[in-house]
Amino acid sequence: MSEEKTSPTAEKQLEIPLPGESGWRFAQASQQAVDVAEELSHLSTPELIVGCLDLLPLVRRAEIFDYLPEGVQEEVAAACSIDSLMELLEELPADSATDLFALLSPEQQTDLLKDLPARNRAALEHLSRYPEGTAGALMTTEMSLLPTGINVQRALEILRRTAPGSETIYHTYVVDPRHRLVGVVSLRQLILANPRATIDQLMTEDLVTSLPDTDQEEVTRLISRYDLLALPVVDEHQRLLGIVTYDDAMDVAEEEATEDIHKGASIAPLEEGLLRTSLFDLYRSRIFWLILLIFANLISGAGILYYEDTIAAHVVLVFFLPLLIGSGGNAGSQASTLMVRGLATGDVGLGDWTRLLVRELLVAGALGLTMAIAVSPIGIFRGGLDIAMVVGMSMIIIVLVGSMIGMSLPFLLHRLNWDPATASAPLVTTLADAGGVITYFALATWLLGLY
Amino acid sequence: MSEEKTSPTAEKQLEIPLPGESGWRFAQASQQAVDVAEELSHLSTPELIVGCLDLLPLVRRAEIFDYLPEGVQEEVAAACSIDSLMELLEELPADSATDLFALLSPEQQTDLLKDLPARNRAALEHLSRYPEGTAGALMTTEMSLLPTGINVQRALEILRRTAPGSETIYHTYVVDPRHRLVGVVSLRQLILANPRATIDQLMTEDLVTSLPDTDQEEVTRLISRYDLLALPVVDEHQRLLGIVTYDDAMDVAEEEATEDIHKGASIAPLEEGLLRTSLFDLYRSRIFWLILLIFANLISGAGILYYEDTIAAHVVLVFFLPLLIGSGGNAGSQASTLMVRGLATGDVGLGDWTRLLVRELLVAGALGLTMAIAVSPIGIFRGGLDIAMVVGMSMIIIVLVGSMIGMSLPFLLHRLNWDPATASAPLVTTLADAGGVITYFALATWLLGLY
Repeated sequence: MSEEKTSPTAEKQLEIPLPGESGWRFAQASQQAVDVAEELSHLSTPELIVGCLDLLPLVRRAEIFDYLPEGVQEEVAAACSIDSLMELLEELPADSATDLFALLSPEQQTDLLKDLPARNRAALEHLSRYPEGTAGALMTTEMSLLPTGINVQRALEILRRTAPGSETIYHTYVVDPRHRLVGVVSLRQLILANPRATIDQLMTEDLVTSLPDTDQEEVTRLISRYDLLALPVVDEHQRLLGIVTYDDAMDVAEEEATEDIHKGASIAPLEEGLLRTSLFDLYRSRIFWLILLIFANLISGAGILYYEDTIAAHVVLVFFLPLLIGSGGNAGSQASTLMVRGLATGDVGLGDWTRLLVRELLVAGALGLTMAIAVSPIGIFRGGLDIAMVVGMSMIIIVLVGSMIGMSLPFLLHRLNWDPATASAPLVTTLADAGGVITYFALATWLLGLY
Repeated sequence: MSEEKTSPTAEKQLEIPLPGESGWRFAQASQQAVDVAEELSHLSTPELIVGCLDLLPLVRRAEIFDYLPEGVQEEVAAACSIDSLMELLEELPADSATDLFALLSPEQQTDLLKDLPARNRAALEHLSRYPEGTAGALMTTEMSLLPTGINVQRALEILRRTAPGSETIYHTYVVDPRHRLVGVVSLRQLILANPRATIDQLMTEDLVTSLPDTDQEEVTRLISRYDLLALPVVDEHQRLLGIVTYDDAMDVAEEEATEDIHKGASIAPLEEGLLRTSLFDLYRSRIFWLILLIFANLISGAGILYYEDTIAAHVVLVFFLPLLIGSGGNAGSQASTLMVRGLATGDVGLGDWTRLLVRELLVAGALGLTMAIAVSPIGIFRGGLDIAMVVGMSMIIIVLVGSMIGMSLPFLLHRLNWDPATASAPLVTTLADAGGVITYFALATWLLGLY
């Protein structure tokens, strides 16, 4: 029990003996594979990682390799011999093997396909067909299967025999002679059932399934919603192609949340973690929207240009400019964030539009009023009663306009089949700013009687 | 197979016959519990929901109740008779029963505790001790246990007998006579092993565990990182208290992501979905930061006040104000979002600070330069060469300053043991705005030779 970890943390730094040191292999044996993978990925060269991995038995090596970040896998694969790669490809679960295969150079791929056993080659070619981000690319073909009509005892015998090649035996899929999925039976049911009962009596026929081209976000949503251990993937004829397991779904859910959060700040998706992304990729992921938003900000500039005379006559108005347009932007990005997340989790749908609009109008009205009251003493103090009136009225309108832009944009994008997350805080802020500038100076021009 | 759902979606509206209609009970039997729960939660009154639930057998009723949103559970519980509640509490898994118990009125609680079987009461009182948001509050006590020293055949007999009271039998926990957790054995291992082998030979002793007061975010991270089906929760003496299952962890992960995304837009956490939250709670979740940010924006105002003479002399400078401060805010919120998410996923830690700072300086420098080049033609066109120079130089400095604020603030908050997500886009934008205003007008005053 001395090895038991009660709270392993990412920060914990373990001492790694160098490859060749006698303690290494044993030191790693009692560690979780994911922890070893993290330690290895901090080594300075891929050759060092290969050296360490080569010290381990194949099963362990494959397990650890599977947890390396994709960029490291690619470097390690490039430094591996064809023989090691062959061993890895045969040992890895089919879905991971397919991912690894995609990372190889065309020469390595050709060399490997030549020598790989027919079974593995078929699985590789089968899984390589599906584009990244779909159920097909996430699924594994290593599920346990049972034919219809057999009894429980026979089913358990088959499971025992096929278990080593299956990712999970806790749910077994029942297929008819044409490989169509007809039900699922859990190991729990099999263990508890009368050995003479047939699996047709036991199995659940109400299945949640997906098609291979279903988006991975939807796959994750289904697994989470229906508390599944695995989601079967079937073709249009209901033939079972593979399964997506819950642990892969959890990883996807984290990736997708990160992507949405980044999009919400106008950052293009990053392939890897922050520290592993190259500086140029980081630059590229940020510059597009920054430049675009400069031009969007020119609308605000144009508004200012139009009211230049008003500003020249009352320079004090500029004092309140950041505060007013900032408030519109802040209220707007709150509203858009609520909508984007609501749409992403399925909490709200297009059908809720009218109800949400009314609610947002009421809430934004109350927010604007409160903020107008908060800002008016400053208005009186800095510019007198007429300026306070302009600022207060502008605040209400600006918060309302900003909130309306913020809540409507995600819906509009969703309607156009774009990702609602594109309605990022910076975009909404910029548009709300423009609305704010124009509202503010138009009101000032009118109320201060400058015409 | 005609009932099989290939892609159930939240949008799909099912026809619900009214309670009492003969089709209802049968229509629901082939549906997933979570779908029925969603349909029920759209009914207009809790009495209607109770009416529908009462038509169903207890097992099914409990299963569906478990999936109702918390707010609806509370209303339904208030409309239920004490007898129905008693049945529900006995049937629900211990963790859900504890959650339900917490929703009841003090009178209902007293009435129930009086009549509840001792076993259920003990579980309720045990689980009620742990504050929400901890491993203790998430865990269930209904796990399957085995004593040390027995053989596989005996273990399978025990599992068969105790299965009905366990949330999962796929992982069974091995405890010593003092109830200390010594290992875990999977049903897969038991099925494949020689029936005469002892479980001590089979079990894995390297366990990832948590304490009952571990934060639920950490619990989710452990389950996801180590691909666990369930995480055992132990006390300081290593005694097993309960387990947290992966499906509960997935729900928590989604909740936590939503909370972080909302915080990123300066919205206080909402207890319920967007449409179920009352207008007042929505108002309250947004107003605090909006008002605070008004006052933060006064720093920008003060900057403008200080340079009022410069502005009066060159009103054209105001044209570029939204564009420049907007750019600083946008670059800053990108930087803060990258850091906040990196810290939340454990992708970066406090130790990476120096490296991240250097990287951010380089990337932000490149971004600022590109944006300065993009904006200078507009500068020349609108204000001539000297204005273009002021605008271009300001752009570089403002983007650098904004990015530094954006990346540093989450680290600082993390260091102070605050949630880094408090460094929201609106807060960073507001601070970057203030830096931008001062930089811009200071540079203009200096370069345009106004002193």
